Amino acid sequence: MTWHYEAPLTSMRRVIEQVLDAPALWAECPVFAELDMATADAVLQEAARFASEVLQPLNSPGDLAGCARAADGSVSTPSGFRAAYQAFVQGGWPALPCDPAWGGQGLPLLLDAAVREMLDACNHGWNMYPDLLHGAYETLKHHGSDELKARYLHQIASGEWLAAMALTEPQAGSDLGQLRTRAEPQADGSLRVSGNKIFISGGEHDLTDNIVHLVLCRLPDAPPGTKGLSLALVPKLLPDGSRNAMFCDGIEKKMGIKASATCAMRYEGATGWLVGEPHRGLAAMFLMMNSARLHVGLQGLGHQEMAAQNAQRYAEERAQMGKPIAQHPAVRRTLQRLRTHTEAQRVLAYRAALALDLAERHRDEAVRAREKRFAALLTPIVKAFCTHHGFHGPAEALGVWGGYGYVHEYGIEQTVRDARIAMIYEGTNQIQAIDLALRKLLADGGVTALELLDGLRVDLGESPGLCALFGEARALLPRWLARAATDNALALDTADDLLHGLAFALLAWAVARLDAAGESHTAVFEREAVPEGLMHWWRVRDALER
Amino acid sequence: MTWHYEAPLTSMRRVIEQVLDAPALWAECPVFAELDMATADAVLQEAARFASEVLQPLNSPGDLAGCARAADGSVSTPSGFRAAYQAFVQGGWPALPCDPAWGGQGLPLLLDAAVREMLDACNHGWNMYPDLLHGAYETLKHHGSDELKARYLHQIASGEWLAAMALTEPQAGSDLGQLRTRAEPQADGSLRVSGNKIFISGGEHDLTDNIVHLVLCRLPDAPPGTKGLSLALVPKLLPDGSRNAMFCDGIEKKMGIKASATCAMRYEGATGWLVGEPHRGLAAMFLMMNSARLHVGLQGLGHQEMAAQNAQRYAEERAQMGKPIAQHPAVRRTLQRLRTHTEAQRVLAYRAALALDLAERHRDEAVRAREKRFAALLTPIVKAFCTHHGFHGPAEALGVWGGYGYVHEYGIEQTVRDARIAMIYEGTNQIQAIDLALRKLLADGGVTALELLDGLRVDLGESPGLCALFGEARALLPRWLARAATDNALALDTADDLLHGLAFALLAWAVARLDAAGESHTAVFEREAVPEGLMHWWRVRDALER
Repeated sequence: MTWHYEAPLTSMRRVIEQVLDAPALWAECPVFAELDMATADAVLQEAARFASEVLQPLNSPGDLAGCARAADGSVSTPSGFRAAYQAFVQGGWPALPCDPAWGGQGLPLLLDAAVREMLDACNHGWNMYPDLLHGAYETLKHHGSDELKARYLHQIASGEWLAAMALTEPQAGSDLGQLRTRAEPQADGSLRVSGNKIFISGGEHDLTDNIVHLVLCRLPDAPPGTKGLSLALVPKLLPDGSRNAMFCDGIEKKMGIKASATCAMRYEGATGWLVGEPHRGLAAMFLMMNSARLHVGLQGLGHQEMAAQNAQRYAEERAQMGKPIAQHPAVRRTLQRLRTHTEAQRVLAYRAALALDLAERHRDEAVRAREKRFAALLTPIVKAFCTHHGFHGPAEALGVWGGYGYVHEYGIEQTVRDARIAMIYEGTNQIQAIDLALRKLLADGGVTALELLDGLRVDLGESPGLCALFGEARALLPRWLARAATDNALALDTADDLLHGLAFALLAWAVARLDAAGESHTAVFEREAVPEGLMHWWRVRDALER
Repeated sequence: MTWHYEAPLTSMRRVIEQVLDAPALWAECPVFAELDMATADAVLQEAARFASEVLQPLNSPGDLAGCARAADGSVSTPSGFRAAYQAFVQGGWPALPCDPAWGGQGLPLLLDAAVREMLDACNHGWNMYPDLLHGAYETLKHHGSDELKARYLHQIASGEWLAAMALTEPQAGSDLGQLRTRAEPQADGSLRVSGNKIFISGGEHDLTDNIVHLVLCRLPDAPPGTKGLSLALVPKLLPDGSRNAMFCDGIEKKMGIKASATCAMRYEGATGWLVGEPHRGLAAMFLMMNSARLHVGLQGLGHQEMAAQNAQRYAEERAQMGKPIAQHPAVRRTLQRLRTHTEAQRVLAYRAALALDLAERHRDEAVRAREKRFAALLTPIVKAFCTHHGFHGPAEALGVWGGYGYVHEYGIEQTVRDARIAMIYEGTNQIQAIDLALRKLLADGGVTALELLDGLRVDLGESPGLCALFGEARALLPRWLARAATDNALALDTADDLLHGLAFALLAWAVARLDAAGESHTAVFEREAVPEGLMHWWRVRDALER
């Protein structure tokens, strides 16, 4: 009954192989042509071992210990974190989806997604450190000068040096146009960066010697607003080995992910170099946004899996009133909801990862273009929906333990606390909903969304609940598009419900696919999820008819 | 923008005076005949001052410090807690609803409810200590021998000595029939109590010298199951001043209410005395259950008020994209939902408190009988619904602060953690739903519920959403009663949705009453809450038609 992790490898394989048919699609991608399911499986098994045997045991101690900042601004992570990170680097995990030319393994983001789900499930706090590597890698790879790439890209791909993203400033939360950090060009082509940043995950720590910061800042001639932001690479250690003028002024006392150092950073004329074009820093960062937001969605998925499997085990062993509590109707409903939600969201999240792979790697340009649109559409849905349920699922699961659920040593309360942040960072879930409504649905008149829905319709079968929910989405979406195109207030007012309503419709498809692959989630989904999905569409309809 | 509390006195007055018409009803209760709204108001104002000026400033420090247990088993509460408690006793607050014959002030439970809401909002952890006094007082008053009453009741009514309820044992959570603690009768009429209890709130602490435990235990000749449980009063200090043989073996490391000492207690032949009849201990404790469950519901209400008002203030001051975030549609929706839910739940919870008063105090026996049934019906609804939203409301509100919401110093994250326990203790919310379905609805064939609904219908007005929701409840309830009477599985499967569906119907009435008193919640309720209420009834209907 002790809190632990059994990697859902059977489910992962089923989704990858049967539901998404990924191996056949890999065969259509030249760079993945050699990849087969056996190789993929070996990767998953190895990751499962690392996550459950190395990371999971560090999770509760890491939460209790938290990080500590010394008077000199140095930050120490919980005991065991550095050794686990070294093992992670030696195992080649950071490089999994990176280009072999830069020391990577060139594997699909789909497999990387499954690996991340396991790492997040076992130790969200620890995984905050390497989680930023891939985004930094992509940004530098696509926008860095050859000189910067030569100096930093191998070390970032391998994970020898960790990375940090320095965006937020105290006066500017989601409103990046308000950023003030300055960057002064120097005669030698470098920049002098000065300013204060907050909420910098892994801004300072003891896992690696060097930490490569990507800092959003303003050049002297920058226009105001987000169009005047540039991106600078600012390393903790300069190429000559000396310490750069950047300091951690404090770490936050947080609700959860206490093992992750959330730093207030001060750059005092720190030396850096421009990444990408002047004033085009946001565009450079947005490049990695789809995969970064998908990664956050995977955190929500991991938390649900962890909660669902531990609640199930506990409920089967714990007896009350003469039988295991798993047989009590209210507990049974909770367990079924958790399991069906987790499995269906896995399909959705992995589908988004597959879209990212196909958008880059498929041999057929038309497929690449279509999947790029699908990826852009699915990303905010996966981020917001999977993290919403990534918090609410475990929060409900906690009740399965009764009073024990409220006690730290049983594990679930930490998951609830850790999971809440994923609804906020990397763009709050409300920002995801606005992104979906304005930049994904209205921007192309709904073409991509309707194409996606119509393509999935064939898999639905005859289940009345699935069809009713899917049909409601399909019927209301064009009406919403017509109205929202000229009614911005309506678009914003309905954005949250629209996102959740669409997500539930996509889950209906996922459930149908899962059941076609031998599972049985339809009955639970019809009873628990369909009314909730319809509730969101009810609100949308109500707004349209007001 | 700093987290603080402005007692919602205007709202409280409106609910008490206009929505519930309480002063007119007090005039029909002989013991309250002298009470007027001016007196009530003075009590509320004084309590508001104590809660916001004394308790609220101790809330965050209390969470950070937690309780500490020394090697000798003694427990120290956070700094300032003892002084605050002494001020509380000197102010006469514990005695508010107690009988003047025992030193009480003889005020209605309705006023006590409003006071508790404020204390809970400001410092749930601190309020755990005095929260148990009234239950202990009622139990002892109705079931204690004259000798026990003479020795303990004044001190409990005044709060000079605190009380603890010792029910749970490690092997038995909600399943009280499994309790094993033994009580051996002695020649002098006392008992020797031996056993281990867990989750004993305030089992040991430094707020008062003596702590009076009420311990569920078994006499040697006890039948098995819950019908063999007796209740013993076991004080920390014996009448001769010596220390009783009871020890705190540990305190739990919890998700929240960290300032409340949750003790594992060991009784090693501790001296105690029987309260009530042998083997009738559970009946003696159940007497106080309605008010105890209402108190927990008030915790949920307090948390929602605290979250709603602080989120509102923050959102009005914090600007993003050139305007206060309160004007951004998604934030505005969150704030409106929180406010409308809080106000409507205040009506519901205070109505239950009024029912408890009228059941005891009204001059007319028919009214007493009716209100007793209403109180029994409303109690599980208030407990489960107000604590469900007491957690989910603040959890949603946290997002208004963005990343700051996740940081301790902004206040809201503690509210979220503290609030989660209220869904569990004093009977989990799933147990409340079963209680409602089996012991409240089916036990009288739905007579009380239908009488309540039909009596409220006249207040609803013409709002289509309110009427649709209320009408759905009124139409489905008889169908549910007919089926559930012979189909226990259906009754249990639908219990959660039935409770929430009924609660939303009652909230529709509350909203109509509030708006008749000059507020305007109907539009928000129709948009946000009606679809959610209908979702629950959809699930009930679905189960009936399966």
